[in-house]
This record gives sequence, C-alpha cells and structure tokens, in this order.
Amino acid sequence: MIVKNKAWLAEQILSKRSFLCVGLDSDISRLPSSVLSSDNPVLTFNKHIIDHTKDLCVAYKINTAFYESLGVKGWEAFQATVNYIPSTHLIIADAKRGDIGNTSLQYAKAFFEEAQCDAITVAPYMGEDSLKPFLSFEEKWTIILALTSNKGSKDFQMIEDTEGIPLYNQVLERTQSWGTEDQIMYVVGATKPEYLSEIRKTIPNHFLLVPGVGAQGGDLEKVFNHGANADVGLLVNSSRGIIFSSSKPDFAQAARTSALRLQSAMQRLLESKF
Amino acid sequence: MIVKNKAWLAEQILSKRSFLCVGLDSDISRLPSSVLSSDNPVLTFNKHIIDHTKDLCVAYKINTAFYESLGVKGWEAFQATVNYIPSTHLIIADAKRGDIGNTSLQYAKAFFEEAQCDAITVAPYMGEDSLKPFLSFEEKWTIILALTSNKGSKDFQMIEDTEGIPLYNQVLERTQSWGTEDQIMYVVGATKPEYLSEIRKTIPNHFLLVPGVGAQGGDLEKVFNHGANADVGLLVNSSRGIIFSSSKPDFAQAARTSALRLQSAMQRLLESKF
Repeated sequence: MIVKNKAWLAEQILSKRSFLCVGLDSDISRLPSSVLSSDNPVLTFNKHIIDHTKDLCVAYKINTAFYESLGVKGWEAFQATVNYIPSTHLIIADAKRGDIGNTSLQYAKAFFEEAQCDAITVAPYMGEDSLKPFLSFEEKWTIILALTSNKGSKDFQMIEDTEGIPLYNQVLERTQSWGTEDQIMYVVGATKPEYLSEIRKTIPNHFLLVPGVGAQGGDLEKVFNHGANADVGLLVNSSRGIIFSSSKPDFAQAARTSALRLQSAMQRLLESKF
Repeated sequence: MIVKNKAWLAEQILSKRSFLCVGLDSDISRLPSSVLSSDNPVLTFNKHIIDHTKDLCVAYKINTAFYESLGVKGWEAFQATVNYIPSTHLIIADAKRGDIGNTSLQYAKAFFEEAQCDAITVAPYMGEDSLKPFLSFEEKWTIILALTSNKGSKDFQMIEDTEGIPLYNQVLERTQSWGTEDQIMYVVGATKPEYLSEIRKTIPNHFLLVPGVGAQGGDLEKVFNHGANADVGLLVNSSRGIIFSSSKPDFAQAARTSALRLQSAMQRLLESKF
C-alpha cells in the first residue's frame, strides 16, 4: 500500500504541476437535470466530475454533510465515491469530527478503516484526547481546523489570550506536537491570505488545506506567496467554483475548464519557485 | 406535532420524576453475544434497551460515531433506532457537527429533516454562521459544546482572554443571543460540577446536557445542587454505565436496573426541590 505522506504529496504536486483539491460538495438540489434520472444521481455526478478532473488535481475532498442529508442512500453514494477515486489521489473526508476519546476512535475507524479515506478534517475544541485517536493512525492525515474561511471565524478563533495569542494560533502551537508533519495538516482559509505568513512562523513545515479560493486567480497567488513552503505545503480546495460551473449536460466539461484554469495558474506559480 | 420546547421538557421531567438521558453508544464490539446473530445486532440491542428503559428516562442520545463506523449498515441502524424511540422522548443526535453555513444547513437537514431527530450536538469553533443554520429550525434543539467532560477540555476551553474570561464562558456569553432558550442547550460535563454554579450565572435559564455521570449517585447530587434551575434545566446522560451493565442474555434487565438506580436518585433530588 502507498503511504501518502508529505514526500508523496509533494511529489504528486510537482509531477502534476497542481496543488488543487476538488471539493465534492455535491448538493443534490444543484445537480444538473441530466443526472437526476440515474439510480444514484450524486454518485453519477461525482463519477463524471472525477473522470474530467483527475489529471488536474492531487486530492478530492468529500464534504460528508451533502451525503448525510440524503440518509442511507447518501452514505452509499459517499462510500461508492471514495471507492471510485483513483489511489493516486488523496481522499479527504471533510467531516469536522471530534469527541471524547472512545468516540473519536469510532470516527477514526469509520473514515480510515471502514470508508478507506486517507484524511479527515477534525475540530480541536475538545482538546488533545479528542484528537489522539485519529493520530493513532500514523499513515493517515488528521486535518485540524485552525483559521477557517467563514465570517464566524472571528467569533472564537481570533480571541486573544492574556499574552495576546489568538486561539487559532494556540491550536497550531499546541497540536503540532501531538503527531508528525506526515500526519497533521491544518485548515487555513484562503479568505485570510495575510495571516498565512504569520501562520508559517508557527508551522513552517506542515501542509495546509486551504478552502475558499474561487475560480479567479487573484487569491490563489496571494495564498501561494504567503503560504508555500519548501514542499509547496499547500492543498488549495475549490468546490462549487468547479463542480457547479454549468447545470447543463456539458457540466463535466465545464468543471474541467474551471479546474484547468486553476491548475494552469498553479503551474505558473509552481514554475516560478520550483 | 408536539413541540418539544423547554416547557414540554420540564413537564416530562416532573411527571416521570427523571431527568435521565440514556446514551446509545452501542459499540458493536461490546454487544452481548445473544444479539450478534440477529440481522442488525446494533438495532436489536437498542430496541431491547429502549423497551427496558423508556419509562425511566426522558431522552435518548444516539452517538453517531458508533453507527458511522459500521458504514451503510450503521446508518440504517441509526435511522431505525430513531424511528423506534417513542415520540414522548427527546431524540438527540450526538454528532458534534459544525461547518460553514451551506454545509451546516445540510447537517441540519440530515438530522432534523431526513433523520427526524429533535436535537443535535454542535461544536462552536467556527462561530455564528456555522451554528445559525441549525438555529433556523426553531422547533428543534441545538446543543452547543461549552465545557466538556474529557481531560482535553482544559486544552482550549479553559484558555482565558485578556479579561480573564475562559473560552467556554465566551461561548456561553456569545451564543446565547443567537437563538431562544427553547432551542439552545449547552453541554457541560458532570466531571466539573463545581463549574456549574459559575455557569448558571451566565445562563440561568437554559437547559444543560450533562454527560459523564456514572452509576454512582455522588456526582449526580453535586450536578443537581449546582446546576438545577426553576425548570430543573438538566438532562443527565449515562451511556456505558447503563447499556453495558451486563454482557449476558439478561443485558436489558441489567440496563434497567442501572437506569432505575439513577432515576430513583433523581426522584429523591427532584422531590427535595419541586
């Protein structure tokens, strides 16, 4: 079995000239009508998207909410999507889990063993023993929320302690010793590229999963300039900006066009530095 | 349809003389061998537990991790368990969800609409817009993590801001205006009963979901004395201490005995004050 560690990820990025992660937030209410008649519309849609983007990206991020909202049928679509993604890609369950130890262990088993994902996003609020069970899977990635891309990130993540250190930075400082750089990644939103240089002072070597980049190249460049490290160290995710590029029967080709635009911009950035 | 608001909950508690929530953390590796031959062991187990405890408790809390770890079959058991719980009980999905707005909305739909639960536990790390979609379901409960029962609760929840207010209290202070007392509840661990009096200064009227009480009555009394309010305002959960009381064929009767011990202690406490 391939161990998809940091070196593997850097190699994939350089050989594909892409650090793109395609987000499969496959909201059934937004699927093109051309797939709705199939037995499992979400799965059919995902297969078309994967077929048309897999040479342009290094990872897929499956947002579990859009599958859970469909009940058992959605869970089937989630698993079948994981099974369909080539082993050459990092498969991220974007699940934002986190609970007491024995419960987190069950979540880790659910996504790492049962579903066979390579990575899961987790929330740090409950502390070390809530994350350790994920980290006990040393060949899997635990992706910890640090500074998220949404407006509400200011509500708690930016609260400063008595020494002026904001909560998101406390999370970076404390959690980095709970595992290796080959198994811990952090979520840092692309909507705050100016924070990336600061964050790199605390965690120079970790990979970052960066959501919030649209179809435009502007933010991407800032993210790269502030966030790239010696291993590139970035997975930039785009979900809606790629997968819902068209609601017509050409949706997969349109998704490819959007993914290609991002990948081309990434290639230019990579060639300027690597 | 019954609206299971605060008044309804208080009425159930006083008429049943119980503020017990039974946690269905139905870990398949711990199920008695007598149920393992059935078509869906987790569901069979849960039905026996519910049959033997429903007159002693006012709520069931289903810990989603133990269902997700079984894949599609587990998701089926989760839904069938929800369907089996009588409408006279509060059905809590202990899911600890929370994500950006459009994603949280899908989680809210998953548990409130698709699965037909009455309540869900959520993590506050991502802030207001990550919780608002849950709160848009005004007749459902959003149960926000505040001070959890595990050791790791000290890692981030206890960090004090520049004014000396710990994070868990910031969560209480800020989130309480995001919805009504009929829809917001807080998780406060029974392992920290001494904090309950402090917490009651910030949120005198909210219901609290209190995990971490064992089969002994000691902690329960402290929780009640520090945490009860005019509506009782407490749901005390016990999971493993009830459902795994015996691994023999008498497991359901043994669970009843454990639940009865807690309910009797609750009745004495209630009669001392109500």
